[in-house]
Amino acid sequence: MTSSHLHAVILAGGSGTRFWPLSRRSAPKQLIALLSDRTMLQETVARVAPLVPPDRVWIVTGREHKDEVDRQVRAIGGGGPVIVEPVGRNTGPAIAVAAHRLVERDPEAVMAVLPADHVVAKPEQFLRCVSRGEEIARRGFLVTIGLVPRRPETGYGYIKRGEPLQSSGSQGEGDGNLDVFRVERFVEKPDRKTAEHYISQGGYLWNGGMFIWRAATILEEIRAHAPALAQAAAEIATALRDGSDEGRVKELYERIEPVSIDYAVMEHTTRAAVIPIEMGWSDVGSWAALDDVAEHDERGNVVSGRVLDIDSERSILYAQDRLVATIGLQDMIVVDTPDATLVCRKDRAQDVRRVVDALERQRAQEHVVHKTVQRPWGTYTVLEEGDGYKIKRIVVNAGARLSLQSHHRRSEHWVVVAGTARVTREDRVYDVGTNESTFIPPQTKHRLENADPSIPLQIIEVQSGPYLGEDDIVRFDDDFGRK
Amino acid sequence: MTSSHLHAVILAGGSGTRFWPLSRRSAPKQLIALLSDRTMLQETVARVAPLVPPDRVWIVTGREHKDEVDRQVRAIGGGGPVIVEPVGRNTGPAIAVAAHRLVERDPEAVMAVLPADHVVAKPEQFLRCVSRGEEIARRGFLVTIGLVPRRPETGYGYIKRGEPLQSSGSQGEGDGNLDVFRVERFVEKPDRKTAEHYISQGGYLWNGGMFIWRAATILEEIRAHAPALAQAAAEIATALRDGSDEGRVKELYERIEPVSIDYAVMEHTTRAAVIPIEMGWSDVGSWAALDDVAEHDERGNVVSGRVLDIDSERSILYAQDRLVATIGLQDMIVVDTPDATLVCRKDRAQDVRRVVDALERQRAQEHVVHKTVQRPWGTYTVLEEGDGYKIKRIVVNAGARLSLQSHHRRSEHWVVVAGTARVTREDRVYDVGTNESTFIPPQTKHRLENADPSIPLQIIEVQSGPYLGEDDIVRFDDDFGRK
Repeated sequence: MTSSHLHAVILAGGSGTRFWPLSRRSAPKQLIALLSDRTMLQETVARVAPLVPPDRVWIVTGREHKDEVDRQVRAIGGGGPVIVEPVGRNTGPAIAVAAHRLVERDPEAVMAVLPADHVVAKPEQFLRCVSRGEEIARRGFLVTIGLVPRRPETGYGYIKRGEPLQSSGSQGEGDGNLDVFRVERFVEKPDRKTAEHYISQGGYLWNGGMFIWRAATILEEIRAHAPALAQAAAEIATALRDGSDEGRVKELYERIEPVSIDYAVMEHTTRAAVIPIEMGWSDVGSWAALDDVAEHDERGNVVSGRVLDIDSERSILYAQDRLVATIGLQDMIVVDTPDATLVCRKDRAQDVRRVVDALERQRAQEHVVHKTVQRPWGTYTVLEEGDGYKIKRIVVNAGARLSLQSHHRRSEHWVVVAGTARVTREDRVYDVGTNESTFIPPQTKHRLENADPSIPLQIIEVQSGPYLGEDDIVRFDDDFGRK
Repeated sequence: MTSSHLHAVILAGGSGTRFWPLSRRSAPKQLIALLSDRTMLQETVARVAPLVPPDRVWIVTGREHKDEVDRQVRAIGGGGPVIVEPVGRNTGPAIAVAAHRLVERDPEAVMAVLPADHVVAKPEQFLRCVSRGEEIARRGFLVTIGLVPRRPETGYGYIKRGEPLQSSGSQGEGDGNLDVFRVERFVEKPDRKTAEHYISQGGYLWNGGMFIWRAATILEEIRAHAPALAQAAAEIATALRDGSDEGRVKELYERIEPVSIDYAVMEHTTRAAVIPIEMGWSDVGSWAALDDVAEHDERGNVVSGRVLDIDSERSILYAQDRLVATIGLQDMIVVDTPDATLVCRKDRAQDVRRVVDALERQRAQEHVVHKTVQRPWGTYTVLEEGDGYKIKRIVVNAGARLSLQSHHRRSEHWVVVAGTARVTREDRVYDVGTNESTFIPPQTKHRLENADPSIPLQIIEVQSGPYLGEDDIVRFDDDFGRK
């Protein structure tokens, strides 16, 4: 069923704050598990897998999320190319650069552009739509997926469909094939009255930012409608192909004006087509949007984790391991994480970003990182910080090792609670078994390694010293290229 | 100013669950700090201190709270007698036994009976009232403190005042002395309409369960109106005086019918008097009652701890170290503790006990203990439990030591993060300094001691083994008489 030219380009560059405290700057919405035990990125990769083999699934993401994207994709058996953007510049530049890379690899490449943080409840409809879109894209159209609107939503852009597209000679229309239309126009987020008019009039579809086109076609259209973007993207593609240094690529990205592909191309092109579809789609733009896509209990609540509820209604109750007890709530959102809790009226869900802004101003940490921090070699969780000490649980993946490093001002005490640690301390290499411990004084070159190829190593680290910041580290050698 | 015969008897036997998750079975309301950095018991002891020297402040409490009561009272320089009740039997038996003990010590003793978990915003009024009560008590009256009602509350009993009490020949009335009345009758918690009638009619006062009387007088009245209680209390007093064993005392308590002093005596006696007073009193019977006694911000919220609020109104927002963000709440209660969070509509505050009941049925722990557990020698906090390991932060008070003990199935790894630990391991005694560590294998006799007389010792303990329950302990020697 897979086509030899179809590629997926998954846009995973978002830095969303609207799902705080579950999402953080270090773990934006696409990298968290909201509705299943897989993250939204993993769900997106898995959704397209029946049509696109792993090596043709491209992911565009930011520098700071590269490691985590790699980890998540590997965890579900993926591992296609990742395009790292030094700075985010909206969808226009991301798509333009990706199109260049695809054309280099396959001049006939068709690309399905898919946001990494949307929900699709009916994946089989999605696949039908992408397959149909590929056919249309081969005929030179820029195909948009148009979601059949369920209500007069003011938070989405709309697509007005035009004439039905004539079938090409070689393709039989009908027989379960999805209908395709020319696009009459794209319209931005409407006000309430306009949205209601769209719904009652019919022929309007939600614009979900999902596109299917030949990479060569979109490059032509970018050249025609957004020549500055075309020029910049070409330079970046050249720099990437030539192996230019990170600094040069960053400089080029920073010079680009941020622009969406809708604004740069779709609102101007004459080659746009739309496939209307109902596939249980949502962009889950806020906690309140979970109502669209999550299962409800008999009183209309969405409940996850260790929640003990009495008589609440229409509320979103999201706990993890800690106990959350709720009594008599109506239309509320409660989200509990190890270091922060949110309690918010459902109709104020958009104001979560104001909390994040306030934390930013306070130079707090609760909007930046989770208590458990992902690293390329595993994770660490700060269990407690006190005056002059910090306690971490460190999990080192099977076979992985941290960098060879030293700290100026802190010493580290390691107690192994599961597995065996291979410890390098200056010139000595020795193993520390479960329930044994070792000690790393300040200014001592050391390395922690899990030599076991099958089970994770778990240690409790007690740091002590006058300064315990993560930036007190000198790296001498690193498997992950960090300095 | 202190009188040579005045004693305070503070009733600290409550096992309240209505302040969950801040209160627990192991830390009921009187033992937690709700409105200041002192616990309610400490506030009660401090309030009466200007009139009663420490050795005449008696505290009645349950077996399981004895250590914590001792610790709290010592921490504020107190240390009077503590009467331990093996089982709670309401106020009647508690007061009767205390009266016996007081009479033994001082036949002229006057006792001020004070619940340990009430708030008094105007302590100087309270002291005036107790002093005045003592005068009246010496004349043979059973004096009740009658709180001037602020609203038609249906949660309190009421006292109908009668004729003004004639002054005795020796005491000049007037001149700032508080008025005293005979009690016409005590009435139980009224319905709404009756309460409104009381307020409009006047002459009714709230019954706060605070009494002042000669110990000999209340014993006479108990004999007259509740002979079975009198008999049982006399037997218990004799057993306590004779140094009978705990089992015998427990048996005697268990045989007593629970009864309040109001029901046993006050509703029948002809010797009751009442002093009406407005002293900013509240029994703070639920989270919602904090509105009566706590300070409010400009939007009517009571806010404590690390709360980041946007636009909430009339809500009680109670955090500790973790961040709680709230948006647009109205008339809500949010209480966050290290292991549990409560979110409750204010008018449902009474249903908190239903949460505690549900936890009981689930055999959960969050209604029993806090993450930080008080011990006579200091505290421990479980930082994390995992498969085969448990991590605790242990604080040992200056000069204190744990029991000499051993564990069958777990080993313990100690990292000292502050102070110096004196460690006994079988026959060896050695010191472990800050940032050093030691290891205790299973079935090894050991003891942890803070030999420093001035600063607390803080260690991180990593336990490992197949069973990590607190009951895997054999004690060989203990400064606190535990087996």
